[in-house]
Amino acid sequence: MRISVPATSANLGPGFDTLGIALNIRNQVIIKPAKFHSVSLKGEGANNPKLKDNNMFISTFNDFHQNLCNSKQQYRFEFQNEIPLSRGLGSSSAVIISAIASAYAIEGISLNDKKLLNLALSYESHPDNITPAVMGGFTVSTIHENEVFFIRKEIPNSLKAVVVIPNRAISTNLSRKTLPFKYSKEDAVFNISHSSLLTAAFMNEDWRMLKKASKDRFHQYYRMKQMPELFAVQKVALRNGALMSTLSGSGSTFFNITYARDTAKLVKKLEDNFPHFKIVVCDFDNSGILVED
Amino acid sequence: MRISVPATSANLGPGFDTLGIALNIRNQVIIKPAKFHSVSLKGEGANNPKLKDNNMFISTFNDFHQNLCNSKQQYRFEFQNEIPLSRGLGSSSAVIISAIASAYAIEGISLNDKKLLNLALSYESHPDNITPAVMGGFTVSTIHENEVFFIRKEIPNSLKAVVVIPNRAISTNLSRKTLPFKYSKEDAVFNISHSSLLTAAFMNEDWRMLKKASKDRFHQYYRMKQMPELFAVQKVALRNGALMSTLSGSGSTFFNITYARDTAKLVKKLEDNFPHFKIVVCDFDNSGILVED
Repeated sequence: MRISVPATSANLGPGFDTLGIALNIRNQVIIKPAKFHSVSLKGEGANNPKLKDNNMFISTFNDFHQNLCNSKQQYRFEFQNEIPLSRGLGSSSAVIISAIASAYAIEGISLNDKKLLNLALSYESHPDNITPAVMGGFTVSTIHENEVFFIRKEIPNSLKAVVVIPNRAISTNLSRKTLPFKYSKEDAVFNISHSSLLTAAFMNEDWRMLKKASKDRFHQYYRMKQMPELFAVQKVALRNGALMSTLSGSGSTFFNITYARDTAKLVKKLEDNFPHFKIVVCDFDNSGILVED
Repeated sequence: MRISVPATSANLGPGFDTLGIALNIRNQVIIKPAKFHSVSLKGEGANNPKLKDNNMFISTFNDFHQNLCNSKQQYRFEFQNEIPLSRGLGSSSAVIISAIASAYAIEGISLNDKKLLNLALSYESHPDNITPAVMGGFTVSTIHENEVFFIRKEIPNSLKAVVVIPNRAISTNLSRKTLPFKYSKEDAVFNISHSSLLTAAFMNEDWRMLKKASKDRFHQYYRMKQMPELFAVQKVALRNGALMSTLSGSGSTFFNITYARDTAKLVKKLEDNFPHFKIVVCDFDNSGILVED
């Protein structure tokens, strides 16, 4: 069985814990029944031997698989990971989603998208990465009584993602701790109106609205202070063709959207200005998780 | 010249200062050059003689008209008002918008929608009533540097508005003062995600999502405490076919959306339970302000 799942950029601009989008950067795992448990790991994280023994995919898979059946069947897991670790591109959500889906699929037990999301909530309490990882596209999500509610929109391939991946991480925990506990009415209303307008811009394919609508007062400033070069990344991106330029998740990656025709120019500018950061161009993903027998 | 402008319901659920919708309840004014200034006033407010002498439409019209030309021309103003006063249905915004548009139109000076909105901001600092009053439909708005940015969606006529108008007002100023100065991160995120999801639901015509997406932690509870029967109005509405049920503006009116086929049942229940409140059924308005020579 082969499962693949996309990277995601969440917390999009003002859409804290709400808006996310799927990128065509995918983690894949092939799972085969075997006499003995074994793991191979290629791509991102391959040089970290801990990830073989203390593997979140396998522990999550086992949690669910053992609940679904009594079999002592062992498996070989072959991971091919493209999603950078700890960079705000949804690698944990990808692992959780694909592990749960695999546990069901390998027993032939059907699992719809909504149930998969609700199961994932016990591992990842915010819906903005898991929803696009499952559904693909741009997603707006919220949670009511341990259930995810979402609306999704496909992204046309006239748009590309230009992702700026720094050479170091911002700790998600530390990053969350830098945020205020309370917000003024003014700042909260700023984000309510901007996140709503950004949503409408995606739903309406009104790409010229993205730049204004993607402004944020909730999280980006506090987190970017931990890596001040990110302010420069955002400025260079917005001056050189980015339709929007936002911190990806809790960082450290910066996420940009461009028209396909403007991509090369933006990449050149970013490479010239930030030679120590990795610049990746990719399509958006409209498929979400894929499970093949 | 004849100008008409729709009522609006703003602050829709979680979309504080952001989301609004236009209703086919209209104020109309006919303006004719005349030897002497004169005013006739019919409909809402007609029994209040102060509104003839201290008329916000005429003072706003004069502010703009005197700036646009030096003429000493006098006018007769014939008002036919359907929008209830001080009930959270956008009567002030309707007056401001139609007065500014009239001053330009009567001099034959063109004024596009965006400029009309930006001029109106000096009288009404929140965009959520003025935008649907100008544009019609459902609108998402924000302000950047004294400019309104918005996206709009038409409402199909399979939906109706059922408006519950109490027999007394909630003061807008008092109503705004009852709101907290600060919000917890949790409550702010609740409204960010719900307002975004509500926006996506309107854009996608996903009407089944309205009930969950229209929940709010920002303003309704604080304002409804001033007229506790409104909690009962909301409960009765949501149990009897309302797709969503939210405080209109800062109250006291309650705004409900239903499928056309469910309207009669909902109206009956509301009339039975709240005989002292006025229940009005109307279409949504997709035209916004109309100016005819």
